Amino acid sequence: MTDRLVWLPFDPAELSDQGGDPPDGLRYEVVDPTEHVPDSVGEVRFYVPPYQVGPRVSEVLGAMTGLEVIQTLTAGVDNIRPHVPEGVTLCNGRGIHDASTAELAVTLTLASLRGVPTFVRDQDRHQWRTAWYPALADRRVLIVGYGAVGEAIERRLLPFEVEVVRVARTARGGEPRVHAIDELPTLLPRADVVILVVPLTDATRGLVDAGFLAAMKDGALLVNVARGAVVDTPALLEALDSGRIHAAIDVAEVEPLPEDHALWDAPNLLISPHVGGASSAMWPRAHRLVREQLHRYAAGEELVNIMSGDY
Amino acid sequence: MTDRLVWLPFDPAELSDQGGDPPDGLRYEVVDPTEHVPDSVGEVRFYVPPYQVGPRVSEVLGAMTGLEVIQTLTAGVDNIRPHVPEGVTLCNGRGIHDASTAELAVTLTLASLRGVPTFVRDQDRHQWRTAWYPALADRRVLIVGYGAVGEAIERRLLPFEVEVVRVARTARGGEPRVHAIDELPTLLPRADVVILVVPLTDATRGLVDAGFLAAMKDGALLVNVARGAVVDTPALLEALDSGRIHAAIDVAEVEPLPEDHALWDAPNLLISPHVGGASSAMWPRAHRLVREQLHRYAAGEELVNIMSGDY
Repeated sequence: MTDRLVWLPFDPAELSDQGGDPPDGLRYEVVDPTEHVPDSVGEVRFYVPPYQVGPRVSEVLGAMTGLEVIQTLTAGVDNIRPHVPEGVTLCNGRGIHDASTAELAVTLTLASLRGVPTFVRDQDRHQWRTAWYPALADRRVLIVGYGAVGEAIERRLLPFEVEVVRVARTARGGEPRVHAIDELPTLLPRADVVILVVPLTDATRGLVDAGFLAAMKDGALLVNVARGAVVDTPALLEALDSGRIHAAIDVAEVEPLPEDHALWDAPNLLISPHVGGASSAMWPRAHRLVREQLHRYAAGEELVNIMSGDY
Repeated sequence: MTDRLVWLPFDPAELSDQGGDPPDGLRYEVVDPTEHVPDSVGEVRFYVPPYQVGPRVSEVLGAMTGLEVIQTLTAGVDNIRPHVPEGVTLCNGRGIHDASTAELAVTLTLASLRGVPTFVRDQDRHQWRTAWYPALADRRVLIVGYGAVGEAIERRLLPFEVEVVRVARTARGGEPRVHAIDELPTLLPRADVVILVVPLTDATRGLVDAGFLAAMKDGALLVNVARGAVVDTPALLEALDSGRIHAAIDVAEVEPLPEDHALWDAPNLLISPHVGGASSAMWPRAHRLVREQLHRYAAGEELVNIMSGDY
C-alpha cells in the first residue's frame, strides 16, 4: 500500500517543533499550484493550500480526483468554499491567527491612547513635545464579538487594570458575563474603548453606523480588527471630523484602501494595512494545527475545524 | 486645638473616590507656590509639592517653620532632597507611576515590533503596504531592572505568550527566578526584546555600551523607559545605523532632545518624549497614595515611602 499523499505550501520539516513531529505513514510534497501543478495532483488526499488562496488554487481542486481533506490556513473560507468538490471535507484555520490578531488589537489600542502616531510625526520633525495622554489603565473596554479572538484580546487586556465588558450575538450568564448585542445602546455610552472583532454577517454589516457612533462617549476610541464593512465609513468619517471619536482600523471596506480615500487624512485615526493575522506569530501556530490535523487524519480520527453546514 | 494644616497641589475633593475619603482633623489648602505663597506658610505641617518641582518650591521650604512631612508625587527626589529642613520626613511617590510607565514600556514594544511607525508614515503618504512584522508572541523578553515597574511590565507581558527573563542587581532564587546583572553577557544573546527599567546609579550609568549592544541578537529590540544615561548614546547610534538593532526610547541623555540631535533621524528607532509617567493613570494613583499617607499621619502611624539614608 502506497502512503497517502499530502500537499503542503511549506517544507514538512516545519511541522516539527518541541511539540512533536508529523505522523508516519503519509507522503509529503511541497507545492505552490500558482507556480506549477505536479503530475501527482490526482493522488493528493490531504491538501493545504497556500495562505493567500488565489484563483489558480480553486482551478486545481478540480484535478484532485482522490482528494479527501482541504485544510486552509485562514479562518475565512469564502474564497475556496464554492470550489470544494462533493464529498471533500473542508477544514479552516481557526486558532492560527488568534494570538496575532489579539495582539494587534491591543497594539492599536495602546498606540492610539498613548500618542504613538503623534510621537512618530514629532520625531520626523525633530520635535520633543511632552503632553498628557490617556492611559489604558482605569478604562472600560467593550469587546464586541466574544469568540476565540475576543477572549484572546481580553486575556491580554486584563493586567492593564481595565474593566472589560463583553458583547456577543447572544447573552451568556455565569462568569464571565457576556452581553447580547442588542444591549449595545446602554453599554456604548459607558465605554472608553470599543474593540470590534465580530465576524462579518448580515447582522454585523454596517453595525457601526451613525447611531452607534453617536452613542459612544466623547473622546472614546473605536478599534476595528474585524472587517471594514462592519463600519459605515461615511458615518465614521463624520464622527472623526467632529473630533468627538478616535479610531484605529486594521481593515477597510475596500482593500487596499485607494490612494484618494478620505480615510487617509481623517483626524484622530490610525490605519494599519490589514496585518492582524500577518505576523511571526502565525506560522508556528499554522504548523501546529496542520500537524495535529495530520495526526488525526493518519489515525482515522475525527478532524477539527470542519466547516460543515452554514458558515 | 487648631487642625493641622496640609498644603496640596490639587483640590482636596480629588482625595475622595470609591476607596474612601481623606481623614478628618486636618485642614487643607490648595497652593501652587510658583504662583503665590500664602501667609499660612509657617503653619504647614504636611506638604505635597506640585508634580513638577521647580526651584521656587525649594525656596518656600525654608519658610515652612512648622513642617513635619513632605510627600512628593515623583519617585525621584533628587531635586528636593538637598532643600529638606532638618527633622522633616521626606516621602516619595513610589507606586504612583508604575501602571503608567509599565503600560508605556509595553506600548513601545508592541508598536515597534508590529510596525506602527511605518503605518503612520504610510498613512501620511496614502500608502497601504501590507508586510509581515514580528509579533510579541513567542519572543523572549529580558526585563533589566526588577522593581515595582519591572514587575508591572511582566504582569502585562505574560498573556502575550512570551517568555520573560528577569534581571536585577542581585540574583534571587525561588519563583520567579531573578538573574544578577552580571549574568547579562549570557542572557543578552538569547533575548528578542530587552526592556531597561533600572534606576540610574553609578552601576547602571552607561550600562548599555557597545559591548552590551554587540551581545544582543540580530534584529533584537531595545526599549528604554529608565533614564537616558543608562545607554551610551554614540554606541546606540552606531548599532541602529548598522541595522542590527531596533530601539524605542522614552528617555534621552539630554531632555528635551535638541533639534539637531542625531537620534531623531536614526533608523529603526521610535522616540517618545518622556511620557512614561505622564498619563491619565497617574492622578488617581497619586490621590490614593496621598490620601493613605494623610490617614497614617492623622492617626500618628508610621508613614510609607520614607526616603531615609542613601537613595
